[in-house]
Amino acid sequence: MRLALGIEYDGAGFCGWQSQPNRLAVQDTLEAALSELASHSIRVAAAGRTDTGVHALSQVVHFDTVAVRPQNAWVRGVNARLPASVRVLWATEVNERFHARFDAYQRSYQYWLINQPVASAIMAGKAGWFHQPLDLEAMQQAMTHLYGQHDFSAFRAAECQAKSPVKIMHHASVSAFGSSLVFDFCANAFLHHQVRNMVGALVYIGKGKYPPDFMAALLESRDRNLSPPTFSPDGLYLTGVGYDTHWGLPVTERRLQFGIG
Amino acid sequence: MRLALGIEYDGAGFCGWQSQPNRLAVQDTLEAALSELASHSIRVAAAGRTDTGVHALSQVVHFDTVAVRPQNAWVRGVNARLPASVRVLWATEVNERFHARFDAYQRSYQYWLINQPVASAIMAGKAGWFHQPLDLEAMQQAMTHLYGQHDFSAFRAAECQAKSPVKIMHHASVSAFGSSLVFDFCANAFLHHQVRNMVGALVYIGKGKYPPDFMAALLESRDRNLSPPTFSPDGLYLTGVGYDTHWGLPVTERRLQFGIG
Repeated sequence: MRLALGIEYDGAGFCGWQSQPNRLAVQDTLEAALSELASHSIRVAAAGRTDTGVHALSQVVHFDTVAVRPQNAWVRGVNARLPASVRVLWATEVNERFHARFDAYQRSYQYWLINQPVASAIMAGKAGWFHQPLDLEAMQQAMTHLYGQHDFSAFRAAECQAKSPVKIMHHASVSAFGSSLVFDFCANAFLHHQVRNMVGALVYIGKGKYPPDFMAALLESRDRNLSPPTFSPDGLYLTGVGYDTHWGLPVTERRLQFGIG
Repeated sequence: MRLALGIEYDGAGFCGWQSQPNRLAVQDTLEAALSELASHSIRVAAAGRTDTGVHALSQVVHFDTVAVRPQNAWVRGVNARLPASVRVLWATEVNERFHARFDAYQRSYQYWLINQPVASAIMAGKAGWFHQPLDLEAMQQAMTHLYGQHDFSAFRAAECQAKSPVKIMHHASVSAFGSSLVFDFCANAFLHHQVRNMVGALVYIGKGKYPPDFMAALLESRDRNLSPPTFSPDGLYLTGVGYDTHWGLPVTERRLQFGIG
């Protein structure tokens, strides 16, 4: 039997989604809880491999099991075996041909940036922070260059294992919420560090170091060395994974809203 | 010279505001950073002594120093010496007769309760959680009994050191925000565990175990033994401290807004 799960996690205490020798990954933690409940060893495959410190509001995973449990046990029973920083949101049986990674046709990410003179103690590790005022309009204008199909090599980490740097950006926007800026991105797929590198470039544009058209020039250069520094993982959230409706998964888009004031 | 500071902190890693032998308090952490900046030992007095795990969006403290520093140094310089879970929001020189605790004529608290079948991983330690549906109207009705001057002994912890259990409640309300419930309380002062005990009683009323009038009966009983269990500290925030305007402090009310969906 193949099951799909929706997962929320706080990435701060983990080396990222994917298992790594001698480090604690979200994947390890989830697999341990599932294996305990199923009484056999379970391996999961996830839609998106989030990086160290990156969070997920709606990660999707699948796994196979021979264990027969009420569907509710895959939520409550697993949650009872997980640390509070990882939660199973829903569980559903899926067709055995479903694959959480290969059948995902798009991913959405949100970047939460606190833009005020003093950082937030409450949101430490859960939001990026920039102390100088940022020009929202300039960043919005820069983001229009990101729409559509591009070679995103300028925003690609050296360690990136993607076969191609060409991705299709369906949505890229920034809006203000209280004293925070919220960046939203949706694409068929993302390169390693791509969102954090795009946010880094947008912050440089927002503070006036570069004009909005710098984004177009960066993209065209395909040169990571011209791109501003990678922004902190703290504010990055995987907010949704898109699957064809015929798989019958719950709607998976979940976004964060946060403000103090 | 006497200075007042506004402070935000995440209480999860601390034994509470107040120093205790062999434990780490927010007070110790702040005093160490201030003393380092001032190059002499500094002791602070705070408006509210928050409990283990309780947060503050707007704690107010004062202290005396002989050190002459630019006002900005008491914000940025101190923050540079603090862990990310404690932030100085503002600093201002005050009259030497000002006392953060004795001149506070009211305190405000907010309790953030996530009311959905699964807890939130992102807000673990930062919000309370209750999995069964709660009746908002019943809780609102119950809260009307809290207004005004009462003997709040039914909500008083055994360890409470307040001289009198009689306090004046200026405001008590609950509202829905997404899948969360937000309780707001404002009173001249609060007893030890009072908010968490009131929230515990309100949850029992919200889930239908008791009718709204149970709140009136509880108050009248003045008997802590009749009161439902103390609710978790995770969702409790000190949101504001009221001072007479002649002290010239910045407006200090700051509330949290949080949602995923």
